[in-house]
Amino acid sequence: MTDVTVPDAQYRAAVVDLLAVLAYGELSAFQRLAADSALAPTINDAAALAAMASAEHRHFTRLRERLVELGADPEEAIRPFVTAIDGFHQHTAPSDWLEGLVKAYVGDGIGSDFYREISVMLHPDDRALVTEVCEDLGQSAFVVETVRAAIVADPAVAGRLALWGRRLVGEALSQAQRVAAERDALSDFLISGGGATLDLAEIGAMFSRMTDNHTRRMQSLGLAA
Amino acid sequence: MTDVTVPDAQYRAAVVDLLAVLAYGELSAFQRLAADSALAPTINDAAALAAMASAEHRHFTRLRERLVELGADPEEAIRPFVTAIDGFHQHTAPSDWLEGLVKAYVGDGIGSDFYREISVMLHPDDRALVTEVCEDLGQSAFVVETVRAAIVADPAVAGRLALWGRRLVGEALSQAQRVAAERDALSDFLISGGGATLDLAEIGAMFSRMTDNHTRRMQSLGLAA
Repeated sequence: MTDVTVPDAQYRAAVVDLLAVLAYGELSAFQRLAADSALAPTINDAAALAAMASAEHRHFTRLRERLVELGADPEEAIRPFVTAIDGFHQHTAPSDWLEGLVKAYVGDGIGSDFYREISVMLHPDDRALVTEVCEDLGQSAFVVETVRAAIVADPAVAGRLALWGRRLVGEALSQAQRVAAERDALSDFLISGGGATLDLAEIGAMFSRMTDNHTRRMQSLGLAA
Repeated sequence: MTDVTVPDAQYRAAVVDLLAVLAYGELSAFQRLAADSALAPTINDAAALAAMASAEHRHFTRLRERLVELGADPEEAIRPFVTAIDGFHQHTAPSDWLEGLVKAYVGDGIGSDFYREISVMLHPDDRALVTEVCEDLGQSAFVVETVRAAIVADPAVAGRLALWGRRLVGEALSQAQRVAAERDALSDFLISGGGATLDLAEIGAMFSRMTDNHTRRMQSLGLAA
């Protein structure tokens, strides 16, 4: 799986696409989390979400620097992914603080799972960077605790947030398909398993792991997946 | 001026107020700048504004830590200032990217000038912290360059942005008066010059310096103050 044998130019095009979509994802997440932190009921809650947003900004900066190292113009590299990611956020604008929290945890979780799965196809440097920016920086504990407390206070919240979680997954998949359809270098790379042998069973196992992780995250929030 | 002779309890109440209003100003600036960065015409512009926002977040974190060191509960300390600062932002929501930039530069500039003037009344540790969080982190150069380029491209922009700059000053003063009217410990401390001799001539000189700085900032943007 880690035996990368694709030609350099093809690898570079795919990895630039991958880091660029990840970079814009981080920048957008930063913008949304920061804006959502203004919906927080207390200053401490706002501070927690603001800290998560700042972490996303650091990740964006690291990815942007790596794009420059690879000889890419971040502006050019990122532009193709703006419509899909903006579309995701437009279709999943949280209507309140709790929806914002669930989106931060569940949405970021799905994204991170995907990038970590993909990262095994990358050269060690790129893999380390992707792993680093997908790390949980302790934000999960805050979200889990806050959402569970809200459900205890008002059990009716759980049904609404469970539906919201499903909508997040649906919108994420829809935009991911859009990106895959438009970016040949990236989707060829992913389908070919980065030149390594990635058979149908492995693709199936990857989706199964991602689905399991999503279900586990929803359950940790006290929500049906 | 730097001879601080007010009783400890009075000083502590005033400095907690001062750091708290500054902290919430930084948190709000972080939230607004991050949201405004989503209006940027290019990824590079968005990245520049996002970096400014992240710097504000670091300042917020430093001020919040200092409030805890002083034995204050940041939540309690900050709450009294939420209405005034939220009010300022509600009344000065930028209608586009350029208004957001002018607000970031001119609004932050007025705030920083004020806090730096006040900081001479503080104990050295607090003074150093206020000076640190009011430092220009290079964001001015980016804003000046971008706004000047926009005026060259469309000179009609200058009139609109000049009016916008005056509105920012008016709203800032209006909310500052509101805070002063509500927070006795803070306003007594400021009027007394922190226990040092701050006469009318010095207060006049302080406002004159702040007005001069504001005019200089507007001019550097190519705008009439």
